[in-house]
Amino acid sequence: MDRHRALIDARIQEWCAGLPKDGLHAPMVYLMGLPAKRVRPALVLHGCEVFGGHAQGALNEAIGIELFHNFTLMHDDIMDAAPLRRGQPTVHAKWNVNTAILSGDAMLVKAYQLMAANAEALAIFSRYAIDVCQGQQHDMDFERRDTVSVAEYMEMIRLKTAVLLSCALQVGACIAGAHGSDREHLGSFGEHLGLAFQLRDDLLDAYGDPARTGKQLGGDLRAGKKTYLLIRGLERSAEAGKSELREELMTSPEGRDVSLMLRVIEALGVREEAEGLVREHDAKAMLALEAVRVEDERKRPLRDLALGLLDRVH
Amino acid sequence: MDRHRALIDARIQEWCAGLPKDGLHAPMVYLMGLPAKRVRPALVLHGCEVFGGHAQGALNEAIGIELFHNFTLMHDDIMDAAPLRRGQPTVHAKWNVNTAILSGDAMLVKAYQLMAANAEALAIFSRYAIDVCQGQQHDMDFERRDTVSVAEYMEMIRLKTAVLLSCALQVGACIAGAHGSDREHLGSFGEHLGLAFQLRDDLLDAYGDPARTGKQLGGDLRAGKKTYLLIRGLERSAEAGKSELREELMTSPEGRDVSLMLRVIEALGVREEAEGLVREHDAKAMLALEAVRVEDERKRPLRDLALGLLDRVH
Repeated sequence: MDRHRALIDARIQEWCAGLPKDGLHAPMVYLMGLPAKRVRPALVLHGCEVFGGHAQGALNEAIGIELFHNFTLMHDDIMDAAPLRRGQPTVHAKWNVNTAILSGDAMLVKAYQLMAANAEALAIFSRYAIDVCQGQQHDMDFERRDTVSVAEYMEMIRLKTAVLLSCALQVGACIAGAHGSDREHLGSFGEHLGLAFQLRDDLLDAYGDPARTGKQLGGDLRAGKKTYLLIRGLERSAEAGKSELREELMTSPEGRDVSLMLRVIEALGVREEAEGLVREHDAKAMLALEAVRVEDERKRPLRDLALGLLDRVH
Repeated sequence: MDRHRALIDARIQEWCAGLPKDGLHAPMVYLMGLPAKRVRPALVLHGCEVFGGHAQGALNEAIGIELFHNFTLMHDDIMDAAPLRRGQPTVHAKWNVNTAILSGDAMLVKAYQLMAANAEALAIFSRYAIDVCQGQQHDMDFERRDTVSVAEYMEMIRLKTAVLLSCALQVGACIAGAHGSDREHLGSFGEHLGLAFQLRDDLLDAYGDPARTGKQLGGDLRAGKKTYLLIRGLERSAEAGKSELREELMTSPEGRDVSLMLRVIEALGVREEAEGLVREHDAKAMLALEAVRVEDERKRPLRDLALGLLDRVH
């Protein structure tokens, strides 16, 4: 993991240093320079190594996936009117919306330049890139809708978050020359990992330790954001004939009693359900990884990475 | 030309019909369905045929280039806060800004999917796609600046408009297997054609026949847009110690005496200079085309297309 991290950070620095010093590229350098876990590029390298490839040979694609991820952040932050990203001003807040649109566009082109060497990896990347856009579209649609089902929510997070982890692993696998069911199993591992990761994120926002997550407890609930906990909480409330959650949602965000909402969701058993779902997708991820036909020792780094993601406290 | 037009229109219709019917794709279908000259895809097909390739074999890339062009229109219209495009509401006006950002992003990915079959064509496409973003960045920068030089303006229109015509021809050439200086000469033909095309656009806005262009005469001057005519007009005014243009620019757009500005620009000889520049780039385009080493008869469609673009009245 640390060895990969050093490779990734060095290549990102090198990439940034090679860019022209101008208004189109400065926002890319800024966003790529904010502290980040670099999960996706690490998955590209692991996806390559698990099939016996060399991490060095997949570094361009690893950075390409991270650039793509950051391009989506730059544009999503405009759409969400988010002032902060990783504790720092978002690109549209620091520069302006037009700059964030245009610099993001150029960043997507730059991502493609890094993905172009392997035709199969390129095709996989494009296919999942459309999925990610589709996921963001669903997420925006949900904001304007009164009700969203759990199934719709799961499909949204699958598209918006999970498929890019799957994509990263499959791109790495491609570069190592892996095809067919082996690559698909590895992709499935990534997708379930991504679903568990996002559900865990929802749980941390509600029940995590603010001192460790660095976020205000229950921030999603205060914003009325349709996460698993709220969607399923409203469903269970309706079944149980309870109205507290719906009533709290009708008040203004500032006046909302978030700790009451958290207690109601927990009392309805929704926290437990969510934790069960995390375990379920975690288990499915591990089964998919098991099905990849390479010697078990090769898979250890991916298992460690999965455990690291799921045991995280922020 | 008509044969190409039919091929292009049919393939665009087919492409649109194959898209999912949802909020992400509807704006693409809408924008691609607005009336358009389809100059860029025609150049891809011509670039292929001039080197003995088959137009059918370059159709995906032709549509890919047109998709890219429309993606830039979708995002540029947001940045310019333009309400209309080809007489119809822009995507962000008809839907909203977020939809126009996201649908445009997905459109760029779709363009890449159509460009992916030929690695060399793909690399050319990415290189020029960055140039186009750079050109838009310069254009936006110019709005906030007091003075822009003629050289800076020419570089801006080269990047924003001319290189994509060059790119389209080179992509077609690649698919026909043309390389090196032949492809470069064809690209140079496209670039000079593009520069002449844009300067002609500036002239038509100022001195064209509104009944034929469908635009308000001198709309660019009223908006204070830094086109060749205004930039060079201000330079010549300063040399001649004249202040009318600068004074008119200080009044509000509604109060601006556009016909006075047009007369001043013409009296300073700037209209003539611009027409000279159109002829110069037109001649350079023809020289570059001459340098392409294929039998002369093969080049006739490109010469016809160039004449059609330059003789246009709208």
